[in-house]
Amino acid sequence: MRKEPIRVAIWGFGAMGSGMARMILSKQGFDIVGVCDMFPEIVGKSIFALLNVPNPYKHDVIIQSDIEALLNENHPEVVLCATDSFTKGAYPKIKLLLEKGCHVISTAEEMAFPQANNPILAASLDQIAKCHQKVVLGTGVNPGMMMDLLAIALTGVMTDIESIEISRINSLSPFGKTVMEEQGVGLSLPEFHAKKQAGQIAGHVGFKESTQMISTALGTKLSDFQQNMDPIVTKVDRESFYGKADKGHVCGVAMKASAILDERIPLHLNHPQQIEPHSEGIQTGDYIHLKGKPAIHMAITPEVEGGLGTIAICVNMIPHVMNAKPGLKTMIDLPVPRAIIGDVRQLLETE
Amino acid sequence: MRKEPIRVAIWGFGAMGSGMARMILSKQGFDIVGVCDMFPEIVGKSIFALLNVPNPYKHDVIIQSDIEALLNENHPEVVLCATDSFTKGAYPKIKLLLEKGCHVISTAEEMAFPQANNPILAASLDQIAKCHQKVVLGTGVNPGMMMDLLAIALTGVMTDIESIEISRINSLSPFGKTVMEEQGVGLSLPEFHAKKQAGQIAGHVGFKESTQMISTALGTKLSDFQQNMDPIVTKVDRESFYGKADKGHVCGVAMKASAILDERIPLHLNHPQQIEPHSEGIQTGDYIHLKGKPAIHMAITPEVEGGLGTIAICVNMIPHVMNAKPGLKTMIDLPVPRAIIGDVRQLLETE
Repeated sequence: MRKEPIRVAIWGFGAMGSGMARMILSKQGFDIVGVCDMFPEIVGKSIFALLNVPNPYKHDVIIQSDIEALLNENHPEVVLCATDSFTKGAYPKIKLLLEKGCHVISTAEEMAFPQANNPILAASLDQIAKCHQKVVLGTGVNPGMMMDLLAIALTGVMTDIESIEISRINSLSPFGKTVMEEQGVGLSLPEFHAKKQAGQIAGHVGFKESTQMISTALGTKLSDFQQNMDPIVTKVDRESFYGKADKGHVCGVAMKASAILDERIPLHLNHPQQIEPHSEGIQTGDYIHLKGKPAIHMAITPEVEGGLGTIAICVNMIPHVMNAKPGLKTMIDLPVPRAIIGDVRQLLETE
Repeated sequence: MRKEPIRVAIWGFGAMGSGMARMILSKQGFDIVGVCDMFPEIVGKSIFALLNVPNPYKHDVIIQSDIEALLNENHPEVVLCATDSFTKGAYPKIKLLLEKGCHVISTAEEMAFPQANNPILAASLDQIAKCHQKVVLGTGVNPGMMMDLLAIALTGVMTDIESIEISRINSLSPFGKTVMEEQGVGLSLPEFHAKKQAGQIAGHVGFKESTQMISTALGTKLSDFQQNMDPIVTKVDRESFYGKADKGHVCGVAMKASAILDERIPLHLNHPQQIEPHSEGIQTGDYIHLKGKPAIHMAITPEVEGGLGTIAICVNMIPHVMNAKPGLKTMIDLPVPRAIIGDVRQLLETE
């Protein structure tokens, strides 16, 4: 086992980035050597004060806004980049990090399978990563695990597949104001449709990525991809800490996608997100139904918590990324994710 | 994509080996170049006649009993070795196959993590494989997936684990006479205990392998491993096609194992196997309960069918084995398993 801890930096200290810092600080074998964020309220502050946790290191970690200075001074081996949802926005940041000699793990949903929406940028990142002998991976709870990798893994015990149906029924109740606005919680139907028309309802980013990840993993041809986003109208008054939807109003969005694999295997993705689903008797959960030989019906109830799940999988993939051959990787290229419980350095390949 | 199909041979043409042949024949990009079995009834016969399927190749595949002749004449790239349950028995066969320049996938339960019960043989296989630039993998539905790899994958979205509980509650009803005898179906309690004492009740092979696979994946230290096998006594008369257990008699075996990870995480494996579980209201299934952050409760009901699952995962791992770096691999070293749906050659790395 190597002696030096793994030098990690975090770019973006929001809910995800700060959660990753908290997780890493609870593990053995890591050293957080830098944190970058642009938000003036936190720049210049110590992450230990902000997280209200003791500092286990001999050095402080002060949030800085200048990523280049951070990289030049502190030489992280791996940077967790929790700044974007789309490849286009993440691309210049990842490029810089690779060129500075860092492995990169991105939370950007599109980066979970950037070949889907941005094949040219994906090819470019692959080239840059190979040129600098580094690895870049996009991951998260979804896309990255619950609606793609987990289903793929379960197909591993199947001799043939007739259809794939994956549902993630989750609650938006734990989320904050921004998410409520992005998902249209509380709007009337006309308001929802107007905002949707204006592109102001975010919904879920990742269906195209999940679909293409599954298709690529199985070695099939993908056709007839479509997705849609409909309002979920509540029949009862619902209220969460940050969200409120009166009866007849929008309490979330029903995201759906479908595609055909090899012209014979229908693939359906179903992802309704709403506040207080239990108020109408809806059981949240992750569900995978694979028809074929043998059929597999999986349920995880309640659903795997999105925030914590994304934080965990990004950190847990660090040793896999460091062990991989250089280039752009997706979750289907690397060994199965796993929780880091013992010293992370034990999980690094030594040869 | 490479032009030549993947040249596969199968050693052992029992339920597993013949099922693998049937599966491979339904896929694109493979060529079964040889089958070896010792059973006089089938030696010299064509596998297409035995399987009652059309021959898609330009050559016949005649079962031969001389493995060396098969290897020398037909040069398989990968051999599926479905001959043993224990590493000791599989070892000389795998050694020969590696030395003859073949990748090997073994169904031997102990080979799923041979470091657990046979560290010296495991190290030797790793050396031989590296020396000949080949890969050897042991896999199956269990050990290999349902009670180890799947739980490991789910921990990937967890920041910490407090306890691990994995159950596989399956039905022995589909199995034949040999399994009924090995699992003590139909015996009285005194008969069961006498046979158990004499080592004539096989139970489940694989707990030590699953436990060590999980512990290694998480980077923990394993302690306090124990396993036991108790009779399941039926309260009602039960009868399956090959098995019969009168009320008060043994209808199967309850296998249990436990261990502690890093002196704080209890790990429990629970694997009751019996005929006609539904007759006492038992819901068969694969269940994984992970306490921690976040908690994950997974159920697959009914259980993934063991025979078909093992056949599938062995064949489905062929491209992963061919893409891997040389040496002894286990399921935690390779990318997630997945069904081969399109042409298998698409799943081979080209560089």
